[in-house]
Amino acid sequence: MPVRHGEQVRDAVLTAAGELMLEGGLAAATMEAIAARAGVSKRTLYKYWPSRGAVALEGFMRSAAASWSLPENAPAAVSLEELVLAAVRLFTQTPAGPLMRSLIADAQSQDEIATAIRDQWLRPRRAVAADLVRQGIASGEFRADLDVEVTLDLLFAPVYYRLLLGHETLSPQFAVTSIRHLITGLKG
Amino acid sequence: MPVRHGEQVRDAVLTAAGELMLEGGLAAATMEAIAARAGVSKRTLYKYWPSRGAVALEGFMRSAAASWSLPENAPAAVSLEELVLAAVRLFTQTPAGPLMRSLIADAQSQDEIATAIRDQWLRPRRAVAADLVRQGIASGEFRADLDVEVTLDLLFAPVYYRLLLGHETLSPQFAVTSIRHLITGLKG
Repeated sequence: MPVRHGEQVRDAVLTAAGELMLEGGLAAATMEAIAARAGVSKRTLYKYWPSRGAVALEGFMRSAAASWSLPENAPAAVSLEELVLAAVRLFTQTPAGPLMRSLIADAQSQDEIATAIRDQWLRPRRAVAADLVRQGIASGEFRADLDVEVTLDLLFAPVYYRLLLGHETLSPQFAVTSIRHLITGLKG
Repeated sequence: MPVRHGEQVRDAVLTAAGELMLEGGLAAATMEAIAARAGVSKRTLYKYWPSRGAVALEGFMRSAAASWSLPENAPAAVSLEELVLAAVRLFTQTPAGPLMRSLIADAQSQDEIATAIRDQWLRPRRAVAADLVRQGIASGEFRADLDVEVTLDLLFAPVYYRLLLGHETLSPQFAVTSIRHLITGLKG
């Protein structure tokens, strides 16, 4: 086997982890299976990642991240709508939806999974959206007194709420209506 | 044992189920335990409820429902804020928070639990909030073109999002900020 450098090893491991997650969820993405598919030792895995949850989620996030791209030079509202729509498409048209449901379920009793979801999945996505909210504030498109974190919750929470509770259909049309209600506000 | 009428039996069963849920979650609220505490037979339970999830959730919902009351003759925005604050207090100050987390986790793989949460928990709460949204539209306090279901999601989803993902603190202050952002809207 040729010697591989750190970045190549990380890349092979994350690809293997992402594939296993999309094929069979967290149950399939064991350290053994990831190591075998990536052609590395379990010891190597533990050198780079503290836990199975961390490597599995990072692999999943990387494969899922390929699903979104942002329009250039668009108003913040348009870019944010595109981000939320990308999340809806990911959750309704790929195995990432059932996978995210089972991961969030596991996160309720396993701190390692909860931490991995926050660090590997939520935080990078929220950072991108937070930049857009701040741009919108700076340009005067949004109000100056917005709380950025609360705004992010209002943008994305409805998607997760319908994904997890299933009381109404999670659809692109829902996402668009939700964001437009939020941007305009409820008041008459 | 004196003969008890249907309503008394239902009342005793729901009280027992609610207590067991708050004491030990769904795992404690077995048909056996509910029947024993309520002093009825399991057959009686199945006469009134189709499943363990249904009776456990209805009992839980009834004990939790005691936690909210609405201000009278208040603007819709004030009443809705009070409803969302009641949910936050329930989830942060009572065992209902951890319990709801584990129920929603179970709902991801057990259809019976998912149905019970929607029928016994979400639907009655959303009906109350929907009436308030419609009142707000009728009085001109809210815009006439609001989608009521989407508005309910925007009001309540952030609470469940922080409860389940834990990326930021679920607090009364968060609920108030979230609702005020939603009512005023993001736009500058």
